[in-house]
Amino acid sequence: MIVKSIQDIIPVPVEADGAVHAMKRILIGSGDGALLFSMRMFDIAPGGCSPRHRHNFEHEIYVVGGSGTLSSAGEEYLLHPGTSVFIAPDEEHQLRNSGTDTLRFLCIVPREYE
Amino acid sequence: MIVKSIQDIIPVPVEADGAVHAMKRILIGSGDGALLFSMRMFDIAPGGCSPRHRHNFEHEIYVVGGSGTLSSAGEEYLLHPGTSVFIAPDEEHQLRNSGTDTLRFLCIVPREYE
Repeated sequence: MIVKSIQDIIPVPVEADGAVHAMKRILIGSGDGALLFSMRMFDIAPGGCSPRHRHNFEHEIYVVGGSGTLSSAGEEYLLHPGTSVFIAPDEEHQLRNSGTDTLRFLCIVPREYE
Repeated sequence: MIVKSIQDIIPVPVEADGAVHAMKRILIGSGDGALLFSMRMFDIAPGGCSPRHRHNFEHEIYVVGGSGTLSSAGEEYLLHPGTSVFIAPDEEHQLRNSGTDTLRFLCIVPREYE
Protein backbone atom coordinates (compact mmCIF):
# COMPACT_ATOMS: atom_id res chain seq x y z
CA MET A 1 0.00 0.00 0.00
CA ILE A 2 1.45 3.32 -1.06
CA VAL A 3 -0.35 6.58 -0.26
CA LYS A 4 0.92 9.97 -1.44
CA SER A 5 -0.26 13.55 -1.49
CA ILE A 6 0.24 15.43 -4.74
CA GLN A 7 1.81 18.39 -2.98
CA ASP A 8 4.65 16.15 -1.79
CA ILE A 9 5.56 15.07 -5.33
CA ILE A 10 8.09 17.30 -7.08
CA PRO A 11 7.06 18.09 -10.66
CA VAL A 12 9.53 17.73 -13.52
CA PRO A 13 9.45 19.74 -16.74
CA VAL A 14 8.35 18.07 -19.96
CA GLU A 15 10.61 19.39 -22.69
CA ALA A 16 10.43 19.10 -26.47
CA ASP A 17 12.24 21.11 -29.13
CA GLY A 18 14.00 23.15 -26.47
CA ALA A 19 10.81 24.37 -24.78
CA VAL A 20 9.02 23.36 -21.58
CA HIS A 21 5.52 22.21 -22.54
CA ALA A 22 4.18 21.00 -19.21
CA MET A 23 5.06 19.94 -15.69
CA LYS A 24 4.68 16.26 -14.84
CA ARG A 25 4.24 14.41 -11.57
CA ILE A 26 4.46 10.62 -11.45
CA LEU A 27 1.75 9.73 -8.93
CA ILE A 28 2.15 5.96 -9.26
CA GLY A 29 4.84 4.34 -11.39
CA SER A 30 7.23 1.45 -11.59
CA GLY A 31 9.13 2.81 -8.57
CA ASP A 32 5.99 2.22 -6.50
CA GLY A 33 5.57 -1.36 -7.68
CA ALA A 34 3.07 -0.60 -10.44
CA LEU A 35 2.60 -3.74 -12.50
CA LEU A 36 0.69 -2.81 -15.65
CA PHE A 37 0.11 0.95 -15.79
CA SER A 38 1.44 4.25 -14.45
CA MET A 39 -0.54 7.30 -13.37
CA ARG A 40 0.89 10.74 -14.08
CA MET A 41 -0.47 14.27 -13.51
CA PHE A 42 0.30 17.01 -16.03
CA ASP A 43 -0.03 20.78 -15.62
CA ILE A 44 -0.08 22.99 -18.72
CA ALA A 45 0.05 26.75 -18.19
CA PRO A 46 -2.45 29.08 -19.92
CA GLY A 47 -1.51 29.44 -23.58
CA GLY A 48 0.66 26.33 -23.49
CA CYS A 49 0.28 23.00 -25.25
CA SER A 50 1.71 19.51 -25.27
CA PRO A 51 3.85 18.46 -28.25
CA ARG A 52 1.77 17.18 -31.18
CA HIS A 53 2.80 13.54 -31.33
CA ARG A 54 1.76 9.93 -31.68
CA HIS A 55 3.11 6.69 -30.21
CA ASN A 56 2.35 3.01 -30.22
CA PHE A 57 0.60 2.88 -26.84
CA GLU A 58 -2.65 4.18 -25.46
CA HIS A 59 -3.49 7.08 -23.16
CA GLU A 60 -6.38 7.33 -20.73
CA ILE A 61 -6.89 10.91 -19.60
CA TYR A 62 -9.09 12.58 -16.99
CA VAL A 63 -9.24 16.37 -16.72
CA VAL A 64 -9.06 17.58 -13.12
CA GLY A 65 -8.89 21.35 -13.57
CA GLY A 66 -8.81 24.16 -16.10
CA SER A 67 -10.05 24.07 -19.66
CA GLY A 68 -8.64 23.56 -23.11
CA THR A 69 -8.80 21.60 -26.31
CA LEU A 70 -7.60 18.30 -27.65
CA SER A 71 -6.89 18.13 -31.36
CA SER A 72 -6.54 14.93 -33.35
CA ALA A 73 -6.94 14.09 -37.02
CA GLY A 74 -8.38 17.49 -37.86
CA GLU A 75 -10.97 17.35 -35.08
CA GLU A 76 -11.00 19.49 -31.96
CA TYR A 77 -12.57 18.43 -28.67
CA LEU A 78 -13.25 20.60 -25.61
CA LEU A 79 -11.65 19.72 -22.28
CA HIS A 80 -13.22 20.61 -18.94
CA PRO A 81 -13.03 19.13 -15.44
CA GLY A 82 -14.77 15.77 -15.75
CA THR A 83 -13.73 15.09 -19.35
CA SER A 84 -12.28 11.62 -19.94
CA VAL A 85 -10.41 10.65 -23.09
CA PHE A 86 -9.22 7.42 -24.64
CA ILE A 87 -6.42 7.89 -27.18
CA ALA A 88 -5.72 4.65 -29.03
CA PRO A 89 -2.19 3.64 -30.09
CA ASP A 90 -0.89 5.63 -33.08
CA GLU A 91 -3.56 8.37 -32.85
CA GLU A 92 -1.92 11.78 -33.20
CA HIS A 93 -2.88 14.18 -30.42
CA GLN A 94 -2.13 17.54 -28.86
CA LEU A 95 -3.62 19.16 -25.75
CA ARG A 96 -3.81 22.93 -25.47
CA ASN A 97 -4.69 25.18 -22.54
CA SER A 98 -7.11 27.77 -23.94
CA GLY A 99 -8.29 28.98 -20.54
CA THR A 100 -6.96 31.25 -17.84
CA ASP A 101 -6.22 28.60 -15.18
CA THR A 102 -3.73 25.74 -15.21
CA LEU A 103 -4.96 22.81 -17.30
CA ARG A 104 -4.44 19.79 -15.04
CA PHE A 105 -5.08 16.25 -16.18
CA LEU A 106 -4.27 12.68 -15.27
CA CYS A 107 -2.74 10.55 -18.01
CA ILE A 108 -2.43 6.81 -17.50
CA VAL A 109 -0.07 4.80 -19.72
CA PRO A 110 1.31 1.26 -19.79
CA ARG A 111 3.99 0.96 -17.12
CA GLU A 112 6.85 0.37 -19.53
CA TYR A 113 6.42 3.90 -20.91
CA GLU A 114 6.84 5.61 -17.56
CA MET B 1 -10.25 8.93 -29.97
CA ILE B 2 -13.09 8.85 -27.49
CA VAL B 3 -14.03 11.93 -25.46
CA LYS B 4 -16.74 11.88 -22.79
CA SER B 5 -18.08 14.18 -20.12
CA ILE B 6 -18.70 12.61 -16.74
CA GLN B 7 -22.20 14.09 -16.52
CA ASP B 8 -23.21 12.09 -19.60
CA ILE B 9 -22.22 8.76 -18.01
CA ILE B 10 -24.99 7.06 -16.03
CA PRO B 11 -23.73 5.75 -12.68
CA VAL B 12 -24.53 2.21 -11.57
CA PRO B 13 -24.84 1.07 -7.96
CA VAL B 14 -22.08 -1.07 -6.43
CA GLU B 15 -23.82 -3.63 -4.25
CA ALA B 16 -22.46 -6.08 -1.70
CA ASP B 17 -24.31 -8.03 1.00
CA GLY B 18 -27.60 -6.50 -0.09
CA ALA B 19 -26.50 -2.89 0.40
CA VAL B 20 -25.43 -0.17 -2.05
CA HIS B 21 -21.89 0.88 -1.14
CA ALA B 22 -21.08 3.32 -3.92
CA MET B 23 -22.03 4.57 -7.35
CA LYS B 24 -19.70 3.71 -10.22
CA ARG B 25 -19.13 5.28 -13.63
CA ILE B 26 -16.97 3.53 -16.22
CA LEU B 27 -15.12 6.43 -17.82
CA ILE B 28 -12.98 4.30 -20.14
CA GLY B 29 -13.35 0.53 -20.41
CA SER B 30 -13.26 -2.37 -22.80
CA GLY B 31 -16.33 -0.99 -24.59
CA ASP B 32 -14.23 2.02 -25.58
CA GLY B 33 -11.37 -0.08 -26.93
CA ALA B 34 -9.24 0.05 -23.78
CA LEU B 35 -6.37 -2.39 -24.19
CA LEU B 36 -4.69 -2.81 -20.83
CA PHE B 37 -6.56 -0.87 -18.15
CA SER B 38 -9.95 0.64 -17.34
CA MET B 39 -10.70 3.91 -15.58
CA ARG B 40 -13.71 4.11 -13.26
CA MET B 41 -15.05 6.88 -11.02
CA PHE B 42 -16.63 6.01 -7.68
CA ASP B 43 -18.83 8.15 -5.45
CA ILE B 44 -19.32 7.17 -1.81
CA ALA B 45 -21.89 9.11 0.20
CA PRO B 46 -21.03 10.58 3.63
CA GLY B 47 -20.93 7.79 6.20
CA GLY B 48 -20.61 5.12 3.53
CA CYS B 49 -17.80 2.74 2.75
CA SER B 50 -16.66 0.28 0.13
CA PRO B 51 -16.74 -3.43 0.99
CA ARG B 52 -13.61 -4.60 2.82
CA HIS B 53 -12.06 -6.96 0.31
CA ARG B 54 -8.96 -8.15 -1.50
CA HIS B 55 -8.33 -9.47 -5.00
CA ASN B 56 -5.48 -10.65 -7.15
CA PHE B 57 -5.06 -7.45 -9.16
CA GLU B 58 -3.87 -3.94 -8.41
CA HIS B 59 -5.70 -0.63 -7.94
CA GLU B 60 -4.41 2.82 -8.72
CA ILE B 61 -6.57 5.47 -7.07
CA TYR B 62 -6.72 9.25 -7.26
CA VAL B 63 -9.04 11.21 -4.96
CA VAL B 64 -10.92 13.97 -6.80
CA GLY B 65 -13.26 15.24 -4.09
CA GLY B 66 -14.39 14.83 -0.51
CA SER B 67 -12.43 13.24 2.32
CA GLY B 68 -12.20 9.92 4.05
CA THR B 69 -9.97 7.10 5.13
CA LEU B 70 -8.43 3.99 3.62
CA SER B 71 -7.81 1.10 5.96
CA SER B 72 -5.53 -1.82 5.22
CA ALA B 73 -3.69 -4.33 7.42
CA GLY B 74 -4.52 -2.44 10.61
CA GLU B 75 -3.30 0.89 9.24
CA GLU B 76 -5.47 3.88 8.40
CA TYR B 77 -4.59 6.50 5.80
CA LEU B 78 -6.27 9.86 5.21
CA LEU B 79 -7.83 10.62 1.84
CA HIS B 80 -8.15 14.14 0.46
CA PRO B 81 -8.34 15.62 -3.03
CA GLY B 82 -4.89 15.01 -4.52
CA THR B 83 -4.23 11.75 -2.67
CA SER B 84 -2.98 8.92 -4.89
CA VAL B 85 -2.87 5.28 -3.77
CA PHE B 86 -1.30 2.10 -5.08
CA ILE B 87 -2.93 -1.06 -3.75
CA ALA B 88 -0.92 -4.14 -4.70
CA PRO B 89 -2.59 -7.45 -5.58
CA ASP B 90 -3.95 -9.28 -2.53
CA GLU B 91 -3.78 -6.28 -0.18
CA GLU B 92 -6.99 -6.01 1.81
CA HIS B 93 -8.55 -2.54 1.63
CA GLN B 94 -11.62 -0.51 2.47
CA LEU B 95 -12.39 3.15 1.72
CA ARG B 96 -14.68 5.13 4.01
CA ASN B 97 -16.24 8.55 3.61
CA SER B 98 -15.69 10.31 6.94
CA GLY B 99 -16.52 13.77 5.62
CA THR B 100 -19.66 15.71 4.79
CA ASP B 101 -19.29 15.77 0.97
CA THR B 102 -19.33 12.93 -1.53
CA LEU B 103 -16.02 11.05 -1.58
CA ARG B 104 -15.17 10.83 -5.28
CA PHE B 105 -12.16 8.91 -6.57
CA LEU B 106 -10.80 7.40 -9.75
CA CYS B 107 -9.83 3.74 -9.59
CA ILE B 108 -7.87 2.21 -12.46
CA VAL B 109 -7.73 -1.57 -12.82
CA PRO B 110 -6.53 -4.07 -15.42
CA ARG B 111 -9.05 -4.12 -18.27
CA GLU B 112 -10.10 -7.73 -17.74
CA TYR B 113 -11.59 -6.79 -14.35
CA GLU B 114 -13.89 -4.11 -15.75
